[in-house]
Amino acid sequence: MVIITLDKLVEECGVVAVELKGTREAAEAAFFGLTGLQHRGQQSAGLALCSDGAITCYKDLGLVTDVLDEKILTLLLGERALGHVKYGTSSEGFQIFAQPLVINYKNGSLATAFSGALVNSRELRNKMEDDGVIFSTKSDCEIVAALVARHDKGDITEAVKKTMNTIKGGYAICFMTGDAIIGARDPFGLRPLALGKLGDGYAIASESCAFDVMDGEFIRDLKPGEVVHIKDGVVTSTDAGAAPVGALCSFEYVYFARPDSTIDGNNVYDVRETAGKILAREEPSNADIVIGVPDSGTPAAIGFSVGSGIPYRPALIKNKYIGRTFIEPTQSQREAGVRIKLNPIGSIVKGKSVVLVDDSIVRGTTMRKIITLIRGAGAKEVHLRITSPPIRNTCYFGVDTPDRKDFIANSSTVDQIRETLGADSLGFISTEGLLESLGGTEYCTGCFSGVYPIDV
Amino acid sequence: MVIITLDKLVEECGVVAVELKGTREAAEAAFFGLTGLQHRGQQSAGLALCSDGAITCYKDLGLVTDVLDEKILTLLLGERALGHVKYGTSSEGFQIFAQPLVINYKNGSLATAFSGALVNSRELRNKMEDDGVIFSTKSDCEIVAALVARHDKGDITEAVKKTMNTIKGGYAICFMTGDAIIGARDPFGLRPLALGKLGDGYAIASESCAFDVMDGEFIRDLKPGEVVHIKDGVVTSTDAGAAPVGALCSFEYVYFARPDSTIDGNNVYDVRETAGKILAREEPSNADIVIGVPDSGTPAAIGFSVGSGIPYRPALIKNKYIGRTFIEPTQSQREAGVRIKLNPIGSIVKGKSVVLVDDSIVRGTTMRKIITLIRGAGAKEVHLRITSPPIRNTCYFGVDTPDRKDFIANSSTVDQIRETLGADSLGFISTEGLLESLGGTEYCTGCFSGVYPIDV
Amino acid sequence: MVIITLDKLVEECGVVAVELKGTREAAEAAFFGLTGLQHRGQQSAGLALCSDGAITCYKDLGLVTDVLDEKILTLLLGERALGHVKYGTSSEGFQIFAQPLVINYKNGSLATAFSGALVNSRELRNKMEDDGVIFSTKSDCEIVAALVARHDKGDITEAVKKTMNTIKGGYAICFMTGDAIIGARDPFGLRPLALGKLGDGYAIASESCAFDVMDGEFIRDLKPGEVVHIKDGVVTSTDAGAAPVGALCSFEYVYFARPDSTIDGNNVYDVRETAGKILAREEPSNADIVIGVPDSGTPAAIGFSVGSGIPYRPALIKNKYIGRTFIEPTQSQREAGVRIKLNPIGSIVKGKSVVLVDDSIVRGTTMRKIITLIRGAGAKEVHLRITSPPIRNTCYFGVDTPDRKDFIANSSTVDQIRETLGADSLGFISTEGLLESLGGTEYCTGCFSGVYPIDV
Amino acid sequence: MVIITLDKLVEECGVVAVELKGTREAAEAAFFGLTGLQHRGQQSAGLALCSDGAITCYKDLGLVTDVLDEKILTLLLGERALGHVKYGTSSEGFQIFAQPLVINYKNGSLATAFSGALVNSRELRNKMEDDGVIFSTKSDCEIVAALVARHDKGDITEAVKKTMNTIKGGYAICFMTGDAIIGARDPFGLRPLALGKLGDGYAIASESCAFDVMDGEFIRDLKPGEVVHIKDGVVTSTDAGAAPVGALCSFEYVYFARPDSTIDGNNVYDVRETAGKILAREEPSNADIVIGVPDSGTPAAIGFSVGSGIPYRPALIKNKYIGRTFIEPTQSQREAGVRIKLNPIGSIVKGKSVVLVDDSIVRGTTMRKIITLIRGAGAKEVHLRITSPPIRNTCYFGVDTPDRKDFIANSSTVDQIRETLGADSLGFISTEGLLESLGGTEYCTGCFSGVYPIDV
Repeated sequence: MVIITLDKLVEECGVVAVELKGTREAAEAAFFGLTGLQHRGQQSAGLALCSDGAITCYKDLGLVTDVLDEKILTLLLGERALGHVKYGTSSEGFQIFAQPLVINYKNGSLATAFSGALVNSRELRNKMEDDGVIFSTKSDCEIVAALVARHDKGDITEAVKKTMNTIKGGYAICFMTGDAIIGARDPFGLRPLALGKLGDGYAIASESCAFDVMDGEFIRDLKPGEVVHIKDGVVTSTDAGAAPVGALCSFEYVYFARPDSTIDGNNVYDVRETAGKILAREEPSNADIVIGVPDSGTPAAIGFSVGSGIPYRPALIKNKYIGRTFIEPTQSQREAGVRIKLNPIGSIVKGKSVVLVDDSIVRGTTMRKIITLIRGAGAKEVHLRITSPPIRNTCYFGVDTPDRKDFIANSSTVDQIRETLGADSLGFISTEGLLESLGGTEYCTGCFSGVYPIDV
Repeated sequence: MVIITLDKLVEECGVVAVELKGTREAAEAAFFGLTGLQHRGQQSAGLALCSDGAITCYKDLGLVTDVLDEKILTLLLGERALGHVKYGTSSEGFQIFAQPLVINYKNGSLATAFSGALVNSRELRNKMEDDGVIFSTKSDCEIVAALVARHDKGDITEAVKKTMNTIKGGYAICFMTGDAIIGARDPFGLRPLALGKLGDGYAIASESCAFDVMDGEFIRDLKPGEVVHIKDGVVTSTDAGAAPVGALCSFEYVYFARPDSTIDGNNVYDVRETAGKILAREEPSNADIVIGVPDSGTPAAIGFSVGSGIPYRPALIKNKYIGRTFIEPTQSQREAGVRIKLNPIGSIVKGKSVVLVDDSIVRGTTMRKIITLIRGAGAKEVHLRITSPPIRNTCYFGVDTPDRKDFIANSSTVDQIRETLGADSLGFISTEGLLESLGGTEYCTGCFSGVYPIDV
Repeated sequence: MVIITLDKLVEECGVVAVELKGTREAAEAAFFGLTGLQHRGQQSAGLALCSDGAITCYKDLGLVTDVLDEKILTLLLGERALGHVKYGTSSEGFQIFAQPLVINYKNGSLATAFSGALVNSRELRNKMEDDGVIFSTKSDCEIVAALVARHDKGDITEAVKKTMNTIKGGYAICFMTGDAIIGARDPFGLRPLALGKLGDGYAIASESCAFDVMDGEFIRDLKPGEVVHIKDGVVTSTDAGAAPVGALCSFEYVYFARPDSTIDGNNVYDVRETAGKILAREEPSNADIVIGVPDSGTPAAIGFSVGSGIPYRPALIKNKYIGRTFIEPTQSQREAGVRIKLNPIGSIVKGKSVVLVDDSIVRGTTMRKIITLIRGAGAKEVHLRITSPPIRNTCYFGVDTPDRKDFIANSSTVDQIRETLGADSLGFISTEGLLESLGGTEYCTGCFSGVYPIDV
Repeated sequence: MVIITLDKLVEECGVVAVELKGTREAAEAAFFGLTGLQHRGQQSAGLALCSDGAITCYKDLGLVTDVLDEKILTLLLGERALGHVKYGTSSEGFQIFAQPLVINYKNGSLATAFSGALVNSRELRNKMEDDGVIFSTKSDCEIVAALVARHDKGDITEAVKKTMNTIKGGYAICFMTGDAIIGARDPFGLRPLALGKLGDGYAIASESCAFDVMDGEFIRDLKPGEVVHIKDGVVTSTDAGAAPVGALCSFEYVYFARPDSTIDGNNVYDVRETAGKILAREEPSNADIVIGVPDSGTPAAIGFSVGSGIPYRPALIKNKYIGRTFIEPTQSQREAGVRIKLNPIGSIVKGKSVVLVDDSIVRGTTMRKIITLIRGAGAKEVHLRITSPPIRNTCYFGVDTPDRKDFIANSSTVDQIRETLGADSLGFISTEGLLESLGGTEYCTGCFSGVYPIDV
């Protein structure tokens, strides 16, 4: 047996902060909010809690519902809470570098939940170590926390602002002190961060779907470079300096975010369906049916169906009890190991010419197997359509990308990819088509284009 | 906080048996087969293994991939294997009555994996206890194993046949001895059981999708009352006496089985899509869009869309990291707790008249919340369509049904249900319509009609 | 690294049963009783509980306090309870054959906790399997339970009596039905079993120290062949037929039992101290100090000190956080790995001639290392004295003995053993001396003499 | 049920550091060394490892053998290792502040294992926080690590020396850098720390018994105020400034240390036995037998026996499977709950006048129960003798003492204590007697006398 992982890029983190003025239920709300951000990170979860000004923190490896079970939650009462989910867990020995990170410094305690990545972390770390700063972890989160602590002369917003003027990168950060929660979004708006209302209180979260799950309401996205400070129900906004042009990560719409979230004015589902329609125009096909690779390819497949008039069918069944990483049998003669996770319905595809729609191709390893399966189930032709341009470049802003040489689009032409994957035809949406689906140009397309908003 | 469970009927079990002549990989194949049957039971899993005639058994509470991890699997080598997944786990103290059940008797060891339920278990148990038989559990499985052991005069098929003439009920059973695997389906064919080919070997499983996952091929369904004996690659079929008229559980198609399975000649997806089309004819609507309750309502929603010409949209997002049972906040003022699990996409439903399609309603508790959510997201009208008739009766053949009084259809007229659930209109498929989708009449519709194939 | 085990024989089990008339605290009492029997078995523990006539059972691998933690105990309320600790855990796959074993038969439920071993289990099993009996385990316990169930025509004492006339071996068994607890001791009294009083209730246990721990009082030992039935505070004694001559296991006094227990009229500590005195007479020495191998050798060392007039010193320190089985470094050049567990105090032994007293030698592996350590700490001479005769024979009555060839006394003369162990002199107590310490002859000395009370 | 803890003071920590030049087995040696220090802390354990200059750390709640199992150890290869065991585990939420603490700073990585306590930690922390230092924990260990990092201008010994001139308290600290191990003992020598040899390498440990267990040899104690630096097999000693008069904790001899350790020239067992002899002289008795409270009271009891001529007997049996903290039944009418842990042998004490010897009394809660038990077992008289003076004062140097009002000696005269405990007579050793047993005066007796070597 071998362990395989579905061929997808992975987001690094999700963050949420809650202040529920006059109640003690912030931790419960933040827990529910975190479950709504679970798709942004499944390896560790954590919740910091502020009760009467004192901060405690619960974090461990595992899903939100594993780390924070019902029993713990009934014990957690506080007026403020800060939560984090993480994809990749750096570890040194047994130490778990889950977040939030809680530090004690001259002005009290500070809890930090960081999403994204800094491009100047090495120089910041070296400089601070030269100044005598000691680090317990190798995370960007600790650098940010140390900078805020250093800059804090009594005005935490000012300290966060100064920190934002020192760090470079794409990030969404939530902080919690003994008396406030703070949200900060990078000057390019590379990573999303939104403000919501919960009864008389407020929340800040990576995606708007977290507000839904907390039974709250989305108010607005934080602006690039904005710091939002919430204390006792009063929201104060500060501009730490936005970049001249925004650069929200376009891949949030392609794959990362939940379809029920709305980011910077665009609903994620709508963008995906629209991209499918545009793809049907850019890369048409005369097939009999359209099928999507669930779950992320489904909205695009429906868009392709609407755009092309070819009927949509959910012909791939996904085993919901199997995670993104699973065991595959080695004795398999055919390239069908992925069938543990995805299985085609023969009665739908048999004898049909099929348009297969997915959101992206990274290495191509999973897609080749899916196409083999669909052909094995009797499909006459398989026309592959992808609603993102070919991925060819490293992300420096919080997405875990493989080595450049591992992107199939770096070693092959589109026709070579088609042949490797075993498709009858292959079409990627153009970068222009993707931007059309987003209705604007202020997006980072670095992983497709190699053009980044920040020097890296 | 409160713990809630999605309002669905639950199947009790899934079974799989594998013989791989000349190899030692039966356990690995059965493991993969079990993962493909995981939807039939999530509370316990087990695998019995026959290596050089000796049977060992690994079973515990948990999902297949929890109970049988990669480490264990590499240790398991054998020519035959028997697997079981279970929904409800009877427990007495710490003892786990997971299956397979392995017993030792005069002719050696016998492993049994049972799916379904007997209607005469009490009298069988009493009679055997009077004869001096001792039971370690309260399960039907142990009764069956004890009967086979008693009847075994050296011909295990004969013993199974005699046992089938003694027990009454709906069942699919797999056995494993030191030199063979055996499958037995009840005389009415109430529970499904199929035969498949795996390389040079054979497998028996509750659903055909298990063969796909094992990289094998579906051969045929067992006939009602059939016993299949597989030894050293030779398949022998014996007729233990079929009922004059078959009565396969119609709810297997409505909800239990995986859409990529084919049972008794009908593909499950096709039946669901067809039922949606018939429902569009029987209970038409003029809405703007059709949406399904994922995952089980999706095929029916597509069928309704095809039948009605109203476009389909996947407007409900399901949190795949949350199980069927989850924690709901109590502070929630609105009936929106289910949002942890299901969340509507506002941009799709806002201002729309919506047809909401699901496969069944049991108590109605979840559906009321879903409709509240959809309205909260801006839908103008919600027209509910259900592709099974109202459920009003206990199942005696292996489905875990609530008290009759808890079925919403037993205390309310269709219009009262509509009002309770908050829908603008409500239509159930007729029993005739359901049978039309199945293309025949030899099905059990007991939970709808109260008419059962066996006196209960 | 290698895993090593201290060189000792191991008892197989301990049993306890409690009835607390008019209260619900039997499980709590039995739990405390079990902790007092933990030395008789550390691999699995279990507690069956009778509440309003219904029996439930909690058992697992681990120490009593691991299997039955405070949380579980507060949930366990019942008028009767049955407990078991086990040394060796037979396992088949994941199945744990911990005890008590609970079966259901025509007259209800029966819980059985078995200590000891049968010599005719194979023929009993074969005969019953020919009669159609099915077994779930390979344990003697299940054979006993099946026999009692078969013989039970409404009088459980009669059924136990008939069972005792069928089985052969050394055993102490406790049973629990829906309305009574029963204790049974084999006709030779090979294994101990005692009756105690707990407030208004009663208890039966392998050793009297269990009554102390339950805050109760020892009443008397069961007589060989006696059955004691306790129901609603009424104790009824039945004679199932004692052997003409008793044969209590002498090794219970040598090593197995706790020093604070009294068995068949002899306090265990007293026997050990007396054996030490007799050994000082039989195998005198002119050494400077006497030291014992803790903990079991301490009473004998004190006896030797009293008998010889040589002062006693506790010169070996035992690491109480390390179990009987532990990891030993492989890089160790000297034979000093056991130092993890036992370390001599140099200031006591340096320059001294030492009498080292232990209760027994099995393979001799540990003792050689201890002597090496003591010499390494500066002892001038080491004179080894053992308060049991050389062990040369298999036990068939519930003690886990190694292969005969592994007993050091089977391959070497006493002088060869001395040389192998590196002692300056070596003396074993004579069988007569051991019996003198016991004050009688009605003891089994099979492991020393090869003469057994039952044909084996 | 209630949870109770034996009435003892507890040491806070044990430390060990190993360098094995030219091998990769330092972690294995440190693991075995830690098992020999387990009595100094049972709540958490940790091991930091230096392999090719890189430091990793494994630490968790639990005993050494739980945290570091055989599987982990085979993975751990390195030329240097640092271990720690801890009694009290400060925790904040789920975060475990086990040690060693590993930090990254301008000169690389530093692992710190701290034993003891600082008296000026609050002012040090405040001052450093004012200087911008951030702390992740509330431990003295982190303060020390931060100071060393700050003071490190390239010479780690110099940095440790400067740190020692800044901190005040009683401590034994081991450090590990990428190329050396360092040990530091406080200027008063309040906490013990010793140097040993392991083959071609060296080790530093809290107690000499750790060297025995590692199959090494004790070389010498570190002098008060000494820093020992070991790099590539070269030991360099530096004097950071000893106090004019030493003040080693006398309670190390009374209770904390293992009897097989030798500290500052005195063997621990010898001191305890001598204290027993002195007590027999200071507080004589005419009883029939002497018994000790195992395990710590045993050497003193033997000393009392030697001094008085009254024979010693091990009449209290300790259940070795029960920890210092355990569950006690509440239904117990008598004060006999401690019997779960300790049980007297009736045949020894019955009708006897008994001298009961223990090392110390803190609150008196356990002792009252022990005396009740001994009387209940038939003792005629119980004369209590304690080999430490009455404890009345807080320790500020690393021992976890209760509130002053909880010391029984603060609310009662000796005769009142005697009455509360139910003894026929009671005698404590005098402070002079204790110092006589230690053969000198350079000891801290603060918990008895209230006179401390440092202003607190």
